[in-house]
Amino acid sequence: MSARNESVVGLGKTRVESLTDGIFSAVMTVLGLNLTLPYITATGNVPLPNLNEIGASILIYMLSFFILAVFWVGHHIVFHYFRRTDRTLIWLNNLFLLSIGLVPLSTALLGRHFSEQAPLIAYGLNLLAVQFLLYASFWYATLHHHLVDAELDPIIVQSARRRILLGPCLSIAAILLSFIDPLISLGTYLVFPAVFVLPGRLDAFWRRQETA
Amino acid sequence: MSARNESVVGLGKTRVESLTDGIFSAVMTVLGLNLTLPYITATGNVPLPNLNEIGASILIYMLSFFILAVFWVGHHIVFHYFRRTDRTLIWLNNLFLLSIGLVPLSTALLGRHFSEQAPLIAYGLNLLAVQFLLYASFWYATLHHHLVDAELDPIIVQSARRRILLGPCLSIAAILLSFIDPLISLGTYLVFPAVFVLPGRLDAFWRRQETA
Amino acid sequence: MSARNESVVGLGKTRVESLTDGIFSAVMTVLGLNLTLPYITATGNVPLPNLNEIGASILIYMLSFFILAVFWVGHHIVFHYFRRTDRTLIWLNNLFLLSIGLVPLSTALLGRHFSEQAPLIAYGLNLLAVQFLLYASFWYATLHHHLVDAELDPIIVQSARRRILLGPCLSIAAILLSFIDPLISLGTYLVFPAVFVLPGRLDAFWRRQETA
Amino acid sequence: MSARNESVVGLGKTRVESLTDGIFSAVMTVLGLNLTLPYITATGNVPLPNLNEIGASILIYMLSFFILAVFWVGHHIVFHYFRRTDRTLIWLNNLFLLSIGLVPLSTALLGRHFSEQAPLIAYGLNLLAVQFLLYASFWYATLHHHLVDAELDPIIVQSARRRILLGPCLSIAAILLSFIDPLISLGTYLVFPAVFVLPGRLDAFWRRQETA
Repeated sequence: MSARNESVVGLGKTRVESLTDGIFSAVMTVLGLNLTLPYITATGNVPLPNLNEIGASILIYMLSFFILAVFWVGHHIVFHYFRRTDRTLIWLNNLFLLSIGLVPLSTALLGRHFSEQAPLIAYGLNLLAVQFLLYASFWYATLHHHLVDAELDPIIVQSARRRILLGPCLSIAAILLSFIDPLISLGTYLVFPAVFVLPGRLDAFWRRQETA
Repeated sequence: MSARNESVVGLGKTRVESLTDGIFSAVMTVLGLNLTLPYITATGNVPLPNLNEIGASILIYMLSFFILAVFWVGHHIVFHYFRRTDRTLIWLNNLFLLSIGLVPLSTALLGRHFSEQAPLIAYGLNLLAVQFLLYASFWYATLHHHLVDAELDPIIVQSARRRILLGPCLSIAAILLSFIDPLISLGTYLVFPAVFVLPGRLDAFWRRQETA
Repeated sequence: MSARNESVVGLGKTRVESLTDGIFSAVMTVLGLNLTLPYITATGNVPLPNLNEIGASILIYMLSFFILAVFWVGHHIVFHYFRRTDRTLIWLNNLFLLSIGLVPLSTALLGRHFSEQAPLIAYGLNLLAVQFLLYASFWYATLHHHLVDAELDPIIVQSARRRILLGPCLSIAAILLSFIDPLISLGTYLVFPAVFVLPGRLDAFWRRQETA
Repeated sequence: MSARNESVVGLGKTRVESLTDGIFSAVMTVLGLNLTLPYITATGNVPLPNLNEIGASILIYMLSFFILAVFWVGHHIVFHYFRRTDRTLIWLNNLFLLSIGLVPLSTALLGRHFSEQAPLIAYGLNLLAVQFLLYASFWYATLHHHLVDAELDPIIVQSARRRILLGPCLSIAAILLSFIDPLISLGTYLVFPAVFVLPGRLDAFWRRQETA
């Protein structure tokens, strides 16, 4: 592909992915670093914390990291199928990243007050925003095969859409369950990320192509 | 292109973009993380904040994120047309990034004191610096088609220049309006980023080429 | 390779490496920045610290940076041999990164309480998690040459596996030594990263290929 | 180049550059963010600071950013000529990055105590470490054209070496001048980064090749 053609076709996706990876890595990391702050900046004597004291902070860090990793993998797979971007897709992605930046806040509030309804709903709404924007990106890009390959298998598109749509459904369920029993709602939040770690129909596609 | 040629032509733009994306993602993220700090590092009992308390912080985060996203998209599009960089362009970009690093400060001051003139002017001057340096980068690179393709359509250059120039004009207007009425000035600042989310003449170019 | 083929073969490794580099650079850097915080944010008079006061913080920063650099080099070399990724490898890497995010905490605790057994064991367990997950990634990817080249020399695979396995062995040794004498355990932790800076059998392979 | 060849030749430089850009962007950015912290995290009423109060912090931020940008440009140009990396070069680069992580600390100390000798010497030693490690990287990679193109013009190597060596010379001069008069030493530190913004013999090479 000549240099001239490169500037002629629509905007590339490399920099959008690069900004996304940068934001995810910053959010995922600095949370863990904050745990360390008191032991780094102190100039005097710092007592050794017992596990109870920092245990809650470490658990919130792990939960936050895990949920963010689920979304990062989702973004990675979704953008894997895109060939180009345009202004609309970039702005859907920017709003996605804005919502990602709020995940640590809503996770921390939930971690501190897991039996109250308000943080359960706030957490659910935050997840809903992230999941909706990821779905909107994929829906927009695959509409009339707008920003993906013309030959992209419709079964891949359908499988991916269903898998992404599972997220908002589970979030809405957890929000509604918080009106019945906070603990069942919390359980739903803890269990559902695990669903996305399991391989799905999409994974089979990658494997099939390899052996071909 | 052979390895030898790669070292022969001027400096590439990949690393300049990589540094830029890294700085944008850091600025855009850590702001949101700071909201979370009190709920992460606390070892004792942390009361649930009411929405009034953290509402202002969340709004400032969103406004900051949005304006930075506008500038990032601008930078992405401008650099999309560059083929190479040189020392002058790199230093224009470094000064651009230095100004970007001050945006959170001037946004936060504005968010806390939005009816006073001093932060309105400081915010305007900061935006002006960012916008001027982005314009200077594009102007410098397209001068005699210095760092862009020789075949780059002059209409694209002209459209892009006009769109970028819109920024400084709106910032100067907002600064001047702050002498008449702080609220009109504030309104100008809140409305103008939206202008850049809308597609422009440039977008049509990308679409036209695709169908060709 | 056509655009269609790119989306057909399994997930690429570029973004996984990009997220990893982002997380490593954030962890490695912000530690150093925390040293600077009191001298940046202060608005009044800040006395010049004497070297004793900040010496311990600087040493912990250096030790942390060094160990993280050892793991980064390990990750760099391991992923160098991968051709593709899949969901399992991505999640092994995500857990690796989660453990990396805890290294500053366990290093700081060790730096403050280097003669007590609890931080020596916590540090060892953290290193063990990182090393085990790096080994698991390499083991999984090279199983039946799953995610590496079919032609990859088995001697390279074997050499790399042995080198990575050295890590967990040294960590387990240091943990066990902490039951005998904390200082010997500490010495083991300080010495073993140096082992990985030395070139190994793998390096010879790179050199041999160059001259061919 | 086939996938097999890629794994056969020595380690690539992409990830080393990626880690470097990540660390530079984190260091350059978070400094500016710290200025903003008090205005973001506060939940109550925050008075508008007068320019005197935050002026010093903004100046230290700018000075820090500028010096880091000089080193980043230096690293960018030096690595531009490298074709591959090996373990030695990676570790020279890791030590370079470790020293970069201390620049904000020594700059902040200098900014707060610019008329005392100790921070002038500490600052000089930090710069010296960074500059020496950059020179060592270039010297090592160009030794017998070890990691650069065999056809790389010796005049380019010589010009680059001389330009990089200028740094340590100026740092040593500034350290020695601090024994005579702190203010002359400070002036040397403030002036010398400007030397590296000016184009040198190397730049002419890039331009010459373009027109060929």
